[in-house]
Amino acid sequence: MYQGVNASEGIGIGTVMVAVDPDLTFEPHEVADSAAEKERYQSALSVFCEKTQAQADHMKETVGEAEAEIMSGHIVLAQDPGMTDAINAAIDGGTCAEQALMDTSTMFENMFLSMDDEMFRLRAADIADIRTGILAELLGKEVVDLSVLPENTVVVVHDLTPSMTATIDKAHVAGIVTETGGRTSHSAIIARALEIPAVLSVSNSCTALRNGMTVVVDGGKGIVEADPDEETLAAYTAKAEAFAAEKAALEAFRGKPSVTADGIKKIIACNIGNPDDVPNALDHDAEAIGLFRSEFLFMDSAELPSEEEQFNAYRKVASALKGAPVIIRTLDVGGDKEIPYLHMVKEDNPFMGFRAVRYCLANPDQYKVQLRALLRASAFGDVKIMIPLVTCVEEVLAVKELVEQCKAELTEEGRKFNENIEVGIMVETPAASLLADRLAEVADFFSIGTNDLIGYTMCADRGNDTISNLYQVYYPAVLRSLKNIIESGVKAGIMVGMCGEAAADPLLEPLLISWGLEEFSMSAPSILRARKTISQWTKAECDELTEKALACNTAAEVKALLESAAR
Amino acid sequence: MYQGVNASEGIGIGTVMVAVDPDLTFEPHEVADSAAEKERYQSALSVFCEKTQAQADHMKETVGEAEAEIMSGHIVLAQDPGMTDAINAAIDGGTCAEQALMDTSTMFENMFLSMDDEMFRLRAADIADIRTGILAELLGKEVVDLSVLPENTVVVVHDLTPSMTATIDKAHVAGIVTETGGRTSHSAIIARALEIPAVLSVSNSCTALRNGMTVVVDGGKGIVEADPDEETLAAYTAKAEAFAAEKAALEAFRGKPSVTADGIKKIIACNIGNPDDVPNALDHDAEAIGLFRSEFLFMDSAELPSEEEQFNAYRKVASALKGAPVIIRTLDVGGDKEIPYLHMVKEDNPFMGFRAVRYCLANPDQYKVQLRALLRASAFGDVKIMIPLVTCVEEVLAVKELVEQCKAELTEEGRKFNENIEVGIMVETPAASLLADRLAEVADFFSIGTNDLIGYTMCADRGNDTISNLYQVYYPAVLRSLKNIIESGVKAGIMVGMCGEAAADPLLEPLLISWGLEEFSMSAPSILRARKTISQWTKAECDELTEKALACNTAAEVKALLESAAR
Repeated sequence: MYQGVNASEGIGIGTVMVAVDPDLTFEPHEVADSAAEKERYQSALSVFCEKTQAQADHMKETVGEAEAEIMSGHIVLAQDPGMTDAINAAIDGGTCAEQALMDTSTMFENMFLSMDDEMFRLRAADIADIRTGILAELLGKEVVDLSVLPENTVVVVHDLTPSMTATIDKAHVAGIVTETGGRTSHSAIIARALEIPAVLSVSNSCTALRNGMTVVVDGGKGIVEADPDEETLAAYTAKAEAFAAEKAALEAFRGKPSVTADGIKKIIACNIGNPDDVPNALDHDAEAIGLFRSEFLFMDSAELPSEEEQFNAYRKVASALKGAPVIIRTLDVGGDKEIPYLHMVKEDNPFMGFRAVRYCLANPDQYKVQLRALLRASAFGDVKIMIPLVTCVEEVLAVKELVEQCKAELTEEGRKFNENIEVGIMVETPAASLLADRLAEVADFFSIGTNDLIGYTMCADRGNDTISNLYQVYYPAVLRSLKNIIESGVKAGIMVGMCGEAAADPLLEPLLISWGLEEFSMSAPSILRARKTISQWTKAECDELTEKALACNTAAEVKALLESAAR
Repeated sequence: MYQGVNASEGIGIGTVMVAVDPDLTFEPHEVADSAAEKERYQSALSVFCEKTQAQADHMKETVGEAEAEIMSGHIVLAQDPGMTDAINAAIDGGTCAEQALMDTSTMFENMFLSMDDEMFRLRAADIADIRTGILAELLGKEVVDLSVLPENTVVVVHDLTPSMTATIDKAHVAGIVTETGGRTSHSAIIARALEIPAVLSVSNSCTALRNGMTVVVDGGKGIVEADPDEETLAAYTAKAEAFAAEKAALEAFRGKPSVTADGIKKIIACNIGNPDDVPNALDHDAEAIGLFRSEFLFMDSAELPSEEEQFNAYRKVASALKGAPVIIRTLDVGGDKEIPYLHMVKEDNPFMGFRAVRYCLANPDQYKVQLRALLRASAFGDVKIMIPLVTCVEEVLAVKELVEQCKAELTEEGRKFNENIEVGIMVETPAASLLADRLAEVADFFSIGTNDLIGYTMCADRGNDTISNLYQVYYPAVLRSLKNIIESGVKAGIMVGMCGEAAADPLLEPLLISWGLEEFSMSAPSILRARKTISQWTKAECDELTEKALACNTAAEVKALLESAAR
């Protein structure tokens, strides 16, 4: 039994597949029979193309046409006559197929890299991918490919990267185990979004767990059972069934309004990172988008996205929501989010550095590109602008001034936008919490970012495992901060939402109801359960529990109280 | 004219000495006349020993006997017959003196390093120092030596390290200019403590300013004037005289109590980092020690200081203060304070990491050594224990529990200590600010650490120049936090002090008086001026100003208001 971090709940039972990159080193050697060697190359190339085509077909079904086309493009490039001719010529000269492929592909790669054009640089990356694929075939090695998996696979990886998840064969993954990452790491967020049971930070799991082993992944408890005996397996199977039954029961809340037991209307919204996440959000019955992180546009690109690119992405989401609110956060760069081409300076304490609105206000021309795109998208739905990392009134006024400039420009250009677009703020710094009443006078809405707020309030980096005990929403100081923020916003008559992990915490939700939180924004899979939790409490009951919680002295007391009251 | 950071006020006029480490590379060559080469070595050795003796004599007068003895020890070691014999033998074999010194000293150094004993490892470091000194003599280079300076020297260095200041010839330094550091850097703190005008972060000053140049250092404005014309020089000379006159006028406050204009008694205390700082603190009329940073004991050592070493240091301070309060902060390691032998893991955001009380509570046996030493010192004066970086009640209770364990042990051992020793906390985190009323129930006193509190509240690393505008005490959020902390402590009837830079800010002091701050702890040179400022305000006047300050919306408004009201 291995203990790790409980990152995504559910019970997964399946067969281990350890996904480690294969060793593709080889010994270059001279070749006598060059005809046979060319034949060997052709055959490796054919197998590579077949596998790639299969992946492309699969992706077209599961992910989308655009992604599938990238894979098909690899086939065309791999079969490029120029490249094949050069490789054959090298083999004719006595070079082995592996070395001929290396030399030729590297030459092409460098040629592409030398051209000062983004399209060619992407092509260079494609060449590298192809080289890895064909080389693996030549050497008889398997490349990690998560796009086609046997049924009930438990994927064991060092770290689950966003690129791995783009192709992962979700339907066949029973569970995920990683060697690194905490509850709020990318791996955890992705696993929860995919609703796959996951246990993270299991040291040496890539070596301790072996291909073919049967394992149980208990994502709620953070436990991995390797080679379970029959009794254990039966117990977990029963648990898995109960979990599935509970999930099925939540279906009763689909299509229903989100209201407390005494009829107070709430909004349950979804956090998304990409326009492609919208169908999943709507499938899970999201009533709005409470947080659209705009970073993806900047991170998935090799240069600053144009106004047109941004506009198209924002409009796509706005249109899909058919008039329901879409809160888009402006670029939150820095901290733990790096965008290479912005060449930001490495800082000693990046969380307390030059990031988010600080960076944007220091680069107003660049920021205005985003603000113009947001304004233009506001003609297609209820788009709201959200400013991250606000610490003072000055910052809000400065952003609003830029928005007014953009409005004037767009009016002059005859472009449409929502004149009354709302400009709100993320409340995620101790300064913003302390100043909530004043900020409520200049911001059109609040959305509490509990992930950062907890970290800053407790002075505890959420990525730092050594002090993870201090990173908890249940600390009295954090609760007081939340109370003050929500009550200040409510008093000022503005909408107060929450888009941090805590909004989906059934233990915390009664307190949030008591203070008057209106919008709960979370990852898609949590929506129906939040609706159920909210339906189980009256305001009066929540008030009573909240009073007791605020009287507690320690986080442990608070948590125990909330657990005992949970419904 | 160069603009830098105004780190330590005053006008310094003097001659530039750029202190950069000399280039000690050399080309090894074969030597024909080995007798002459041995003679050359002996002569370099003699000069080195003479200079070292002069430094030792000077240090004995200005710093202390113990430090001077370390220098004298270098002479004995440099003249060690074993080493000299080996060097002579190498020269006889045709090696040049420089290479012979390198080879032999490196051999001795490695021999010392290989012995698993701290004393030998210190000896290895001595050998390296000696090698640098003799090599510089052989090559005709000057080693940076700040212990003997011509009168009116303006020292220009890349960064002023604590080790440089240990030997600096304070009486002859007219000013300091560095290439790096902000207002709260080590260089700045040291310059203010030495009362030397200093301008920091003047880019390329080590190359732009040249030896022998006349320069003016305006530490209040952060300006360096190189080669000033007569008019400029006259103006600055007048300014320097006015500054000196103002300082002389402060003498009227020496020996007087610290009281507001309407007779409210305050305590003006001193922040120190070393028992040797006490005479200077008392010279400047400190009424207590408001912060004794215990890190020096750990940083100036090659291993954990023993209970006895710590006890002696704490007792020394306690005895010198003759019953006046001495607040000693327990080990505040981590963040920007590194102690190599503790082998702490490098963190992404060290300010939000495993530091201070978090580290200490994770190493209770080690922490108890310090707590026992503090308790034992409490038999010799009014020693109070202060816990850094508190974020929750749990931490205070855990430390108090350890203190009780130590008391029981000491009682059993028959050792004396103050049964009623006070255990207070640094209030320097947003969590502690939010929870001030609760913490006041378990802590015997508060001391507000504004340096960290501002940083955490505004999410702005004080060492990060890019966002230095956000690192200001005048932001409304910070003022509210201070108000809540002070008023919560006052209401609970405990002593509330402040040991951050802000306690010495004449602009802020009226607000602190209004909220009821009792103890103002600062660097020694600020004490008399703070006493004067306090004497100029009645509580009612402070209340009126405070009300206006809290009504401001921006930091700029707050600062302008306080400047217009300054006395």
